[in-house]
Amino acid sequence: MMLIIGERINSSRKTINEAITKKDIKFIQQEAVSQVNAGADMIDVNCGTNVGKEKSDMEWLVKSVMEVVNAPLVIDSPDAAVLEHGLKVYTDLVKNKSGMTNKRPMINSITGETVRMNGILPLVKQYNTMVVALTMDESGMPHNAQQRFDVAKKVVTAAKEYGIPAEDIYFDCLVRPISTEPDQNKEFWDSIIMIKKGFPGVKTTCGLSNISFGLPNRHLINSYFFAISMYIGLDSAVVDITQKEMRQGLLIANALLNRDEFCLNYITGTREGKI
Amino acid sequence: MMLIIGERINSSRKTINEAITKKDIKFIQQEAVSQVNAGADMIDVNCGTNVGKEKSDMEWLVKSVMEVVNAPLVIDSPDAAVLEHGLKVYTDLVKNKSGMTNKRPMINSITGETVRMNGILPLVKQYNTMVVALTMDESGMPHNAQQRFDVAKKVVTAAKEYGIPAEDIYFDCLVRPISTEPDQNKEFWDSIIMIKKGFPGVKTTCGLSNISFGLPNRHLINSYFFAISMYIGLDSAVVDITQKEMRQGLLIANALLNRDEFCLNYITGTREGKI
Repeated sequence: MMLIIGERINSSRKTINEAITKKDIKFIQQEAVSQVNAGADMIDVNCGTNVGKEKSDMEWLVKSVMEVVNAPLVIDSPDAAVLEHGLKVYTDLVKNKSGMTNKRPMINSITGETVRMNGILPLVKQYNTMVVALTMDESGMPHNAQQRFDVAKKVVTAAKEYGIPAEDIYFDCLVRPISTEPDQNKEFWDSIIMIKKGFPGVKTTCGLSNISFGLPNRHLINSYFFAISMYIGLDSAVVDITQKEMRQGLLIANALLNRDEFCLNYITGTREGKI
Repeated sequence: MMLIIGERINSSRKTINEAITKKDIKFIQQEAVSQVNAGADMIDVNCGTNVGKEKSDMEWLVKSVMEVVNAPLVIDSPDAAVLEHGLKVYTDLVKNKSGMTNKRPMINSITGETVRMNGILPLVKQYNTMVVALTMDESGMPHNAQQRFDVAKKVVTAAKEYGIPAEDIYFDCLVRPISTEPDQNKEFWDSIIMIKKGFPGVKTTCGLSNISFGLPNRHLINSYFFAISMYIGLDSAVVDITQKEMRQGLLIANALLNRDEFCLNYITGTREGKI
């Protein structure tokens, strides 16, 4: 089944940034609860906007969110020190938290850059996390499926050296907007196939909303893109699952892919007005 | 680009059957015009319900529809005599009809059954038509991709003997409902890939609404199924393109598949409220 990561608690969004700045705990907690109610399996927390305060903001975010949901968290920062602090706070909190069927957190994200791998892979091992790996490295953004594959190879090799199994790596093959780079979507889709075939066990994820950048009715495009990507083999997505269209894409793709026995989730979702 | 065949003028639909029985030309013509306006490239005409009157009904249907649209027709019957009469009427009418950029009709359908191929393939050749070939034969409905492929092989071989090129054959790989046969959709999708790979040049089509039989919000399921099938390689579909959801699936899949320069059709469609 798809692993749905709720993307909304990210300080690049204005309302979230304000809530973090004002320490508006109620607002943040509502965002967490509404995402879980809509079907998020994990909640991403990102507070990278306020320079110099990321560490303390992350602690506050982790504590605030964990108070109200049982979904494990995705600690989201490029900074190893922030990730480590967030993971420490998270691990201490979940130790005695009941009601969680799965407690493993995720790190978002490493890349194929040596410095970033060396800084963060030890945390993946130490805290027994899953990890998102962006398929880019020192040479910048990838231009085709092969370049994404080559980065994945570096990451799988490095992870192995740290004793991290392929199953815990979620490769983000970097979605590009069809409005400005219409030939890149094929490369994205092809890279999912190549990477999953080349490195058995690894998973794939993506922040998919980028696909519709600059276009009207973005959620609708995102949702069809989501469904097609699920057919291709996408295992996870960082999405706004509170959007009706995204739930439609998820439930219908699951039904079409024979992952919804008797189409029960689809029928129930329709009956309850969820899609 | 996808070849969209408008499915609505089919006497299995109650309102159409009544209109054919009453010779309500206005009703039929409105159905033809609305489908073309919604994006149909060809119009399917089927009047198989009134036993004994199919030949004269087909003549009336062909004449009625041709009066108001410039889209070529898909003559739809299992009966070679009805097909031949329909094609004769059509061919006489289009000979001097202006405004049609493409006049080639299509036959819907043959199967892999020897009798049906021998009866209808000569008409395909004589009238220079395209033809829908259902991937079933004397042994009944196919249960997996390989059986569909095997039927396709028989059809391609027989067509070649009549001098009919692979490019004129549209294989219908027979969609089955996910509600009752959830494992069959994978076989359907796999067969599209196998047949297009195995017989270069051949096309694929399908009557897709069967996928959602017995489920709520059928157009929504049909539309996502449509988009994923386009990714896989479906070349054509027999659909109700007057449904907003189908146009959404078509326009969005075209944009995602880089078949819509600058996403202009998508943007225009959105602006005009078509999707």
